[in-house]
Amino acid sequence: MNNKIKAIKNQLVALNLQGMIVSDPLNIYYLTGLEAEGTLLITPKENAFLTDSRYIEAVNSLLTLEQEIVAYDIKNLNKYDYGSFFADCENVGFEERYVTYEMYKTFLQTYQINLVETEGLIEIHRNVKENEEIDNIEKACQITDRCFEYIIDFIKPGMTEKEIAYEIEKYMRENGADGLAFDSVVAAGKNSSMPHAIPTDNKIKENDIIQFDFGCKVNGYCSDFSRVLFLGRMTEKQEKVYDFVLKMYDKITSKLTDGLDIKEILKECEQDYKENDYELMHSFGHGLGLFVHEEPTLSVKKCQKLKRNMVITIEPGVYLPGEFGIRLENTILITKNGCNSLTKSSMRNIRKS
Amino acid sequence: MNNKIKAIKNQLVALNLQGMIVSDPLNIYYLTGLEAEGTLLITPKENAFLTDSRYIEAVNSLLTLEQEIVAYDIKNLNKYDYGSFFADCENVGFEERYVTYEMYKTFLQTYQINLVETEGLIEIHRNVKENEEIDNIEKACQITDRCFEYIIDFIKPGMTEKEIAYEIEKYMRENGADGLAFDSVVAAGKNSSMPHAIPTDNKIKENDIIQFDFGCKVNGYCSDFSRVLFLGRMTEKQEKVYDFVLKMYDKITSKLTDGLDIKEILKECEQDYKENDYELMHSFGHGLGLFVHEEPTLSVKKCQKLKRNMVITIEPGVYLPGEFGIRLENTILITKNGCNSLTKSSMRNIRKS
Repeated sequence: MNNKIKAIKNQLVALNLQGMIVSDPLNIYYLTGLEAEGTLLITPKENAFLTDSRYIEAVNSLLTLEQEIVAYDIKNLNKYDYGSFFADCENVGFEERYVTYEMYKTFLQTYQINLVETEGLIEIHRNVKENEEIDNIEKACQITDRCFEYIIDFIKPGMTEKEIAYEIEKYMRENGADGLAFDSVVAAGKNSSMPHAIPTDNKIKENDIIQFDFGCKVNGYCSDFSRVLFLGRMTEKQEKVYDFVLKMYDKITSKLTDGLDIKEILKECEQDYKENDYELMHSFGHGLGLFVHEEPTLSVKKCQKLKRNMVITIEPGVYLPGEFGIRLENTILITKNGCNSLTKSSMRNIRKS
Repeated sequence: MNNKIKAIKNQLVALNLQGMIVSDPLNIYYLTGLEAEGTLLITPKENAFLTDSRYIEAVNSLLTLEQEIVAYDIKNLNKYDYGSFFADCENVGFEERYVTYEMYKTFLQTYQINLVETEGLIEIHRNVKENEEIDNIEKACQITDRCFEYIIDFIKPGMTEKEIAYEIEKYMRENGADGLAFDSVVAAGKNSSMPHAIPTDNKIKENDIIQFDFGCKVNGYCSDFSRVLFLGRMTEKQEKVYDFVLKMYDKITSKLTDGLDIKEILKECEQDYKENDYELMHSFGHGLGLFVHEEPTLSVKKCQKLKRNMVITIEPGVYLPGEFGIRLENTILITKNGCNSLTKSSMRNIRKS
């Protein structure tokens, strides 16, 4: 059986669950490598992938014997077949964070089981990355860095935010990425004060400040990266904010390491925001992997011990509505004795001259 | 108040619901035009859009007075505010097809209400399109047609399926589309027998048969389109299958009109498949709009009366595993006295010479 499914099976035993229904496509891809629509059943007897006629041929050609996963075409399954998957199981786990209320009710009826919430069991397992996963994230980060270099060169006043966002996407896809990790942010001038600004048809002007936030995917694995580009001189106010954001970034990353409970350092930063009268508009970062926002959660309210080979972002930002915003962000690998930023573009005062 | 929310409010009254929690971003966009993350509450007192600091500035700048929607930043809401939205409501609707089991439980706790399933209330309302929506779908279909013309010219043996899929996306986005309606299918040779084939690094060969299935979005509205391109002569077997698929397409579309219960004609086609020993691997079509698969459902098992200004696809296909597959599909507007295909590329024997 593949190691990941084996590890999940062990955790199910510890939770007194005799099986699990896996529905989230990212969890299915993580455990099996399959991208077809379907449901993975981890049962006492077997690992079953239930799919339909559109995918069955492709699925069967991808699965290897060692994986010990049996593919079923649902058109060949009747009521009794469904009932037998979890026969004699007292408790079966499901993904309450992915499964809709309608699916939940269908599962109860179809499998005739007692369903138990698994509280992100597989997602939490996903947060410590294997070497191959780190390789993919590293590649995504390299493409992202090179893209930023390319874009600094490419940008000219008169171009629209939308045009630049499209150029970012094209560059990354033509240079090894599967696609975007999320919709890119290209926000110029006042738009930069909106953390999740959608690129507009507004034209870039001389002396603009431009906020970027973008990332790509390689073999499904994400990068996430933010920088600010100045087309002219920073104003004094911009310089003050930039320095503060960079100070927050350095403060957090100087502490990151295996074993750290990140809550404490984030609390200190929250205090720094208060003392400077800046509003904290989003968290300081998040885990990433197959999804751009995943475990671990970085919150001042929740203990979160970092572990070696977790991959997270650190992204402090300050936003002054109607004026401008500045966010700096890297994708970071937690190591045994510190951390390693996988996006490596300069963070100092990036100006296009 | 905007007309769409008004119509939904009237339907809620008829269902004895005093309010509704709208969570699906497509339904929120449909009702409000907003693309920000958040939740729309339709309450007896007001229409409230709950969002967070990342979006509040943008949301407030987009909402007009006539819409009668009040935006709230959730960081300013306490337990009692949440409790007051649906105070005195006996039953409040929610979207059980979108809301996860976890969200469902959070809603119960946050709003202190009795939640009732709405069985796709808004989705069903979405299935008859307004003129502006049809205009958008029409534009998406025109871009799709022009893209196919471009791609026929572009394709050469030696290119990979992935390269062609990327070229399709680039063409559509550079010619007016917001993006893809779904991941494009470009499946050559044997791959064409998999209805949802993912483009591979396989190179197109002389005499290949190539199955296409792609579509784009304009202002959020989708097109959906399938054709087969022959790089050489059809084999006799291919010709037989092609003719059968086209016959099925013509049989269905010749009947489509306002008021038709589509089940009957689909049943006849199902019988034709059986008589020819072809396996029916997917449905004959589906509604489309803001999502590429939406109401109405076209099923041999369920009555479905077509209505004027519904937009659906008709897409019969035959798949011979290990050999080839052929699917033909158009996006079609139902009219008062028939139907009107919005994708207009030729369906006859498309061959690149």
